Amino acid sequence: MSHLYRHLRIHQVFGANTDVGKTIITTALVRASALKNSAVFYLKPISTGPLHDADDAHIKRFAGPNQSLVETRCLFRYDEPVSPHLAVKMASGAPKNAVSVPSDRTFLNSVAQYIRSCARKCPAGHIYIETAGGVHSPTLSGTTQVDSYRPLLFPTILVGDSKLGGISSTISSYESLLLRGYIVDAVILFRDHYYRNYEYLSSYFTARGLRVLSVDPPPPRLDNHAKNAENTEAYYAKIVSGGLDGDIFEAVRHLDDCHTRRIEELDTMPRRTLDTVWWPFVQHGLVNSETDVTVIDSAWGDFFSVYERAPEPPSETASSDNSLLSPQFDSSASWWTQGLGHSTPSLALAAASAAGRYGHVIFPEATHLPALKLAERLVKDGPGKGWASRAFFSDNGSTGTEVALKMALRAFSIKAVPALTPVERKNLGVVGLKGSYHGDTIGAMDATKKSIYSCEWHQPKGFWFEPPTVSIKRGKLVVSVPNPMFTSVASTHHFDTLDALYDVEGRLSSPLAEAYRLFMRQTLQTFNRSNEQRLAALMLEPIVMGAGGMIFVDPLFQRVLVDIVRDPSLFSTPLLVIYDEVFTGFYRLGLESAIPLLGANPDISVYAKILTGGTLPLAVTLTSDRVFQAFYSQSKADALLHGHSYTAHPIGCQVANETLDLISGLLQKEPWKAAQAKWSADAKSRSTIWSFWDPSFAQAMSHLDIVEEVMTLGTVFTVKFNGDNTGYASHCARKLLQSIKDVVNHGSRSSTLASDSFGIHFRTLGNTAYFMTSLNTSREIIEEVENRIWATLNTQNKGLLQ
Amino acid sequence: MSHLYRHLRIHQVFGANTDVGKTIITTALVRASALKNSAVFYLKPISTGPLHDADDAHIKRFAGPNQSLVETRCLFRYDEPVSPHLAVKMASGAPKNAVSVPSDRTFLNSVAQYIRSCARKCPAGHIYIETAGGVHSPTLSGTTQVDSYRPLLFPTILVGDSKLGGISSTISSYESLLLRGYIVDAVILFRDHYYRNYEYLSSYFTARGLRVLSVDPPPPRLDNHAKNAENTEAYYAKIVSGGLDGDIFEAVRHLDDCHTRRIEELDTMPRRTLDTVWWPFVQHGLVNSETDVTVIDSAWGDFFSVYERAPEPPSETASSDNSLLSPQFDSSASWWTQGLGHSTPSLALAAASAAGRYGHVIFPEATHLPALKLAERLVKDGPGKGWASRAFFSDNGSTGTEVALKMALRAFSIKAVPALTPVERKNLGVVGLKGSYHGDTIGAMDATKKSIYSCEWHQPKGFWFEPPTVSIKRGKLVVSVPNPMFTSVASTHHFDTLDALYDVEGRLSSPLAEAYRLFMRQTLQTFNRSNEQRLAALMLEPIVMGAGGMIFVDPLFQRVLVDIVRDPSLFSTPLLVIYDEVFTGFYRLGLESAIPLLGANPDISVYAKILTGGTLPLAVTLTSDRVFQAFYSQSKADALLHGHSYTAHPIGCQVANETLDLISGLLQKEPWKAAQAKWSADAKSRSTIWSFWDPSFAQAMSHLDIVEEVMTLGTVFTVKFNGDNTGYASHCARKLLQSIKDVVNHGSRSSTLASDSFGIHFRTLGNTAYFMTSLNTSREIIEEVENRIWATLNTQNKGLLQ
Repeated sequence: MSHLYRHLRIHQVFGANTDVGKTIITTALVRASALKNSAVFYLKPISTGPLHDADDAHIKRFAGPNQSLVETRCLFRYDEPVSPHLAVKMASGAPKNAVSVPSDRTFLNSVAQYIRSCARKCPAGHIYIETAGGVHSPTLSGTTQVDSYRPLLFPTILVGDSKLGGISSTISSYESLLLRGYIVDAVILFRDHYYRNYEYLSSYFTARGLRVLSVDPPPPRLDNHAKNAENTEAYYAKIVSGGLDGDIFEAVRHLDDCHTRRIEELDTMPRRTLDTVWWPFVQHGLVNSETDVTVIDSAWGDFFSVYERAPEPPSETASSDNSLLSPQFDSSASWWTQGLGHSTPSLALAAASAAGRYGHVIFPEATHLPALKLAERLVKDGPGKGWASRAFFSDNGSTGTEVALKMALRAFSIKAVPALTPVERKNLGVVGLKGSYHGDTIGAMDATKKSIYSCEWHQPKGFWFEPPTVSIKRGKLVVSVPNPMFTSVASTHHFDTLDALYDVEGRLSSPLAEAYRLFMRQTLQTFNRSNEQRLAALMLEPIVMGAGGMIFVDPLFQRVLVDIVRDPSLFSTPLLVIYDEVFTGFYRLGLESAIPLLGANPDISVYAKILTGGTLPLAVTLTSDRVFQAFYSQSKADALLHGHSYTAHPIGCQVANETLDLISGLLQKEPWKAAQAKWSADAKSRSTIWSFWDPSFAQAMSHLDIVEEVMTLGTVFTVKFNGDNTGYASHCARKLLQSIKDVVNHGSRSSTLASDSFGIHFRTLGNTAYFMTSLNTSREIIEEVENRIWATLNTQNKGLLQ
Repeated sequence: MSHLYRHLRIHQVFGANTDVGKTIITTALVRASALKNSAVFYLKPISTGPLHDADDAHIKRFAGPNQSLVETRCLFRYDEPVSPHLAVKMASGAPKNAVSVPSDRTFLNSVAQYIRSCARKCPAGHIYIETAGGVHSPTLSGTTQVDSYRPLLFPTILVGDSKLGGISSTISSYESLLLRGYIVDAVILFRDHYYRNYEYLSSYFTARGLRVLSVDPPPPRLDNHAKNAENTEAYYAKIVSGGLDGDIFEAVRHLDDCHTRRIEELDTMPRRTLDTVWWPFVQHGLVNSETDVTVIDSAWGDFFSVYERAPEPPSETASSDNSLLSPQFDSSASWWTQGLGHSTPSLALAAASAAGRYGHVIFPEATHLPALKLAERLVKDGPGKGWASRAFFSDNGSTGTEVALKMALRAFSIKAVPALTPVERKNLGVVGLKGSYHGDTIGAMDATKKSIYSCEWHQPKGFWFEPPTVSIKRGKLVVSVPNPMFTSVASTHHFDTLDALYDVEGRLSSPLAEAYRLFMRQTLQTFNRSNEQRLAALMLEPIVMGAGGMIFVDPLFQRVLVDIVRDPSLFSTPLLVIYDEVFTGFYRLGLESAIPLLGANPDISVYAKILTGGTLPLAVTLTSDRVFQAFYSQSKADALLHGHSYTAHPIGCQVANETLDLISGLLQKEPWKAAQAKWSADAKSRSTIWSFWDPSFAQAMSHLDIVEEVMTLGTVFTVKFNGDNTGYASHCARKLLQSIKDVVNHGSRSSTLASDSFGIHFRTLGNTAYFMTSLNTSREIIEEVENRIWATLNTQNKGLLQ
C-alpha cells in the first residue's frame, strides 16, 4: 500500500510519452537533490533496451561533490527496446504461454521493499522512481503502469512532451493520472522554442492549480557515444550547477514544499475534522481526541491507506521504515456500500463518461440511456425478473423505502375492502419484524418499532414480530425460536447444512412452519380485533436485519409471514409486500436477491448500496404492475408526487450499469466456485447458499467462550459476544476488537499480505461485530483477515478465562 | 449542438497523437465508402503545414470508379506546421495580442454549416471529419479539440498509435474522449509487427466493449515526392481494393452498424421508457405517448440535445438538413440543480479523480480531504460564516432538512423550559409559511401543511402563516399583503427598486414591520393558548418558496418572524430557526445565501442542488455550536443517530469543491457586473439585489393581459398567469407555453443562437411558469430565451384578446 515518510520524499516520474526526456529530467533532479545535500535514491523498476544506453547511465556518470549520496537501482532489466510486457516474453526466449511473468503483486512488493530499505538507510533523502514509456505503457504483467503502481500511490511528476502533438499527450496523460486518483505535484518539460508547448501548458495547468516547470532542452543526440556523453555532461553542468539555482533547483524546492505541505495537511486533519464536522451516528463526546480520527488518505481494493501521525525522528541519524500511511482492511465495506474494491478504474471512468456526456439531466417525462438501461436490467434481468414492471429512482436506501411505503399505502388504500375512512388512511400500519431498520428518514423509521435511533417525531405505525433467528452456536447450525412465541415448539432446531436450512420450499410442510403459521394467525387476528389500525403492508429485510444487529432471520418465518398477509381469510384486502434489499441485495449474501430463496415475490422491493459498487448514492424501488396501476389515472393528483432533483442522475446510473457488468463477470469465476464448493455437503457440487468465509473459521470462532454465536452468508461474517446486552449502546464488541485496528508488524514485511502487516478497520453494532469482504476479495486476503480475527479474539478469550 | 441524420453517417477522426496515420486511415475510409457507393464528404476543419503535403491530397488523388461521389473541404488552412493556436498567430504576422482569432462558436458554426450543407445535398452518405494532432491539441482559439468540438458531439474514431509508447497515448486519448462524454465507435491503428500495439490494444479495448481494427502499415515515407505518391497509391490500391473486402471495408461496415444501431436505440427509447420507468411527479396516465418522452441524448452548457424521431426520407432523392437531434434550453436547470452548464469538463474530472483516489470511504470517526475541505469552506467561508460551527453531510435536500428537523427537535427538547412531557416531545411543532416545501420524505412533509403532495401518513405538525408576497404587477414592484391578515394595513405596498424592497434592516422600523409584528404576536399567542402543541422550530425557505409555486415572500415578513420566535416574552424557550436554502443557496437568487439579507442568523441551514454544480446528489446541514452541544455527552444514546451509508462521499465533495471554485471565479466577471448595473437605480453602481434577466423584459412581460404577475431575482424568472387557480394540478401555464419546446426554424440557421433555432424545455408549477439560467449563461443566450418567451406569450396574449 501507499508509502509516506517524513524524512524521505518520494516522487514517481511518469512521462507523457516515451522519449520525452524522463531520464534526463530525472537525472537532473537526482543530481540537484544530491547537490542540495540530500541522500538520493534513483529507482528504475523496469528498464528495457541495450545496457550501454541504460537509464541510470547518466546518473552513474555524476561526478559532483556529493556523488556518494546517490544510489541507483533497477529491479527488472531487459535488452529488447520494446514495451516491458513484450520484453519479458522476448527475453525468456520461450513460447508466449510458457513465460513466467512476475505478477503485479510480486512486482509491487519488490518496489515497496526497496523503498523501505531506503527509508531505513537514511535520515533525510529523496527517492525518484522513473517509470517506463508513457503513463499507460504496460508493465511486465501487461497491466498498464497507472493501474499497476496505483496501490502504492506515490506523488507524481509528469514529464511533459515538448514536441508537436505534445500538448495533447501531456494533457491526456495528466487526465489518466487523475482518473486513478494520483497526486500530480508538477509537470516538467523542455523549453522547445519552436512548438512552445511549455507556454501553452503553463497557462493550461496553472489555471488548474498545477505547477509547470520548464527546463532548457538537451543537446541533440549524436551517433558517437563518447561525444554524446560529453555533450550531455556539459548540459547537466549547465542546468544543474553548483550555484544551486535555476529551473531544476526550483523544481526540487517545489517538490520539497509539496511533500512538507502534504504532511502538514495530514497532521492537521484530525484536529480540523473534530472542529468542523458533525459525524453521523457518532457521539462526539466519546470520540474527541485526534487519535480517534481515522485519516483516510486514499483507498485501493479492500484497503484504506490511513495516515498515522508519527513523531519526527529524534535525531539526524534516526531513520525508520515505518510508513506514515498504513493499510487497513475496510471490513465494514465502507458502511456496506462497497462491493468491488475501492477506486476501481472502470467505475471512475464510467462516472467520468456520464459526467462528460450529461452532467445531471432532468428525469420526469424524459429519458436517457444510463437510466433506461439500468431500469430495464433491474426489472427484466435482475431482482425484478418475473414480477416487477417498473423502476422508480431515488437517492439512497432511506428514500427508496419511503417511496416503497408511499406506493404501498396508496395501493392498499385504493383497493381496500371495505373502503377506508380518512382516519383509517392516516393510521395505516405496517407488519414487520422486531429489529427491522429501513433507513434514517422519519417516515422510514415510523415503519419500525421505537428504538435508540428514533427521534422526537417517531410514531411507530404497525406491529412487529420477534423472529426466530439463525446462527452457528458451538459448531452447530441452529434456528432459535424466541421463548415467548410458543410453548409447544422446541426453542432450537438443528440443521446439517446451510442448504437444508435455507430450503424454504422444502421446509414449508415442516411442523415448525405449521407452528409459525398458527402463531402468526392468532397474533394477527388478535391485532386486527383489538386495534383500530388497519394493516396495509408487510415490510421485510429478507434473510438478514442489518442495522438491527446483523440478525439472521429464519427465512421460513419470513416466507410464512408473506403467505399469511396475503391470506384472504385473514385480510379482506391482501397486504402489500415490500422487500428491503438495500443491504442484502446484489450478492452481499451470495445471492443477487433473496426473492427466489423465499419463493414468494414481493409487490415492491428496494435496492441501493452495492448498486453503484461503493462509489456514490443511488437507489431504486422496483414495483409490480399492480402497484403502478394504483397511481395511473387521468388526474395529476393521483400520481406518485415524490421525486428528488437528482432522480436517476446519469453518473450514478452509468456507474451502476458498470457495476452490474463487473459483478456478472465474477459469478462463474474460480474464487466463487471454490467458496461455493467448500460450503457444499458434497465436495463435488456447489452450494447455492454459501459464504466467502471459510466454514472451519466459522466453526472455530463459534467455539470461543467469549462468543455467543456466529453466522455467515456471502460476504458477511458476524460474531455476537457474550456480554452486556445493552444493545446498540453496548461497547463490548468494540473493546474486544480494539487492537485489530493496528498494524502489528508495522510496514516491515515485504508483503502486505500477512495479517500483522495490515490493520482491520471495523464497525460494531452493540455486542455484535461484523466483517465484510467485497465480491472480489481474494481468498488469500480473506484468510489473512480470518487469521487476524482469530488471533485477536483467541487472545481476548484466553485473557477472559484466566 | 449535436447533429445526427438518418441518411448521413458522421464520424469524427481523432488521433492518439500527431503523425499516427490519421490522414491515411481517414483517406482509406473515404475511398472505401465511395467504393461502396456512398456519397462521401471529407472535412478537415483546420489544416496546418505546407500545401503540397495537405491532408486532402491523398483523397484528391483518388481515381476510383466512384470518384465523383467524394467531396473534400478545409475550413481553415495555415502554412506553418505547428499547433493551430500558434499557426493562426504566425500566419497573421501581427504581434500576438493583435491577432483576430475565430472564437470557438464561430469555428463550430462553420463546421455545423458545412455538415448541414452535406445533409441537404445527398440522400445517403458518410462524413469523415479529421481533427488535427492529438485529442487535446489546441484549436485556433486555444481551447483543446476535445473540448472545443464537444458541443457537436459527433461519434468518433480514435486512430491509435502503433509505435513505441503508442499503447499509452492511445489509452490516454481514449480516456480524455470518454471524460467529455464522446461516443467512441472504433479504434483503428496500423499493424506494426515489431511493437505489436494492435495485439495489446485489441484485447484491452475488447474487454471494454470497444472494437479495435487494424490495417497494414503504409510504405515508409520517402524524400522523393513523386515516388512517395506512387508508393502511397499502391498502398491504397492494396488496402482499399475493388473487391470491397479487407480491414478497411470491415471498418466501414462496423461504423455503418454503429450508426444504424444508435438510431435504432434512440427510436426505441420512448417506448421502452414508457414500459419500464416510473417517473417522479408524473401522472403516467397523462404522459403515455412516445412523443411525450423527451429523449436526452446528451447535454452541453445550458442545452439538452434531444432526439426527435423523424420519418425516413420518403425516396432516394429526398434529403434533409433537419438533424434528428435538436437543442433545447434547459430552463428548469434540470430541476433546479444545474448552475454551471451541463457536462463541465472540470466537474467530470473532479468526479473522476475522487473516484480514482477513494471510491466511497466510510465517514463516521473518519476524515478525508474532499469532505474536510468542503466542510471548512461552508462553515468558515461560505453560508455558515459568522454563525455555523459544524457541517453534517447527507444525500439530498430532503434528507438534509430531516437532519435539520431532528437537530432542532432535540436541541429544543433539551433546553425547553418548562421541561417537556413525553407526549409534548412527540407532538412538537414547527412554525412556517403556507406554501413551504422542504422535500419529499415523510418527515420533511410533516413540517408543512397538507397539500397535493402529502401521502397517507402525512401529519402536519405545526402552524403556517400565509405570507405577504413580492412581485412585479403591470410594471410595478409590489408587496401584496394577504387579505385576512389585517384590516388596518393596505393590501399593496409599492417599491421603486429591488434594493429598496430587499433592504430588510432599513424596513424594520416601517409601519408595515410593526403591523407584521402585531399580527404574528397575536396569532402565536392564540396558538400557544389554544393548542396542546409546543412550537419548537421555525423552518423557512428564505426569499422564495420554490416547489410551493415559486412564491417570492416579503423578506421583511420572514425577518420579523425570526425575531418573534426568539422573543422570550412569547416563547419561554427560543425556537430553533432553520433556513432551508436547498433551492435558494449558492447564487440561485444572485446571493450566496440569504442570511446577510435577512440580517438574522439561523441555528441550522440546509444546502444541496447547486452545491455539486448540477452533477450528483449531496446535501449539507450547517449548525451553530449551540445545536451541536445539545447532542454532546458521554452517552451514545444522546448522539444524532442519523446517517446515510454514502455520507460525505468523496466524489460529491470533490465536485462540490470544484463547483465552489468555479462559482467564485464568476463573481467579479463582466457578465455579473453588467447585470448588477442594469438593476441598479444609479447606472454607475451595482445592485446587490439583481437578476440575470433584463429589467425591461420583466417590465414588458408584466404588462401582458394573460399575465397576473412576474418576478425575478438572480437566475430565476417566474410568470404567474391569470387563469384557473386549481393550484399545482392546473395545466394552464403548460398549455400556454407548449409551443416553446419546439425548434421553429429547424436546424437551418447557422448559429444556434437565434431563439427559433432552439426549443425551450420548461417545467411549470400549476399556473406559474418559471425559467432559470445557469450562473454562467451568456447574456446573448438569455436574450434569445427572453425573446422566445416574449414571442410565444405575446402570441398567446393576442389570441386570448381576439
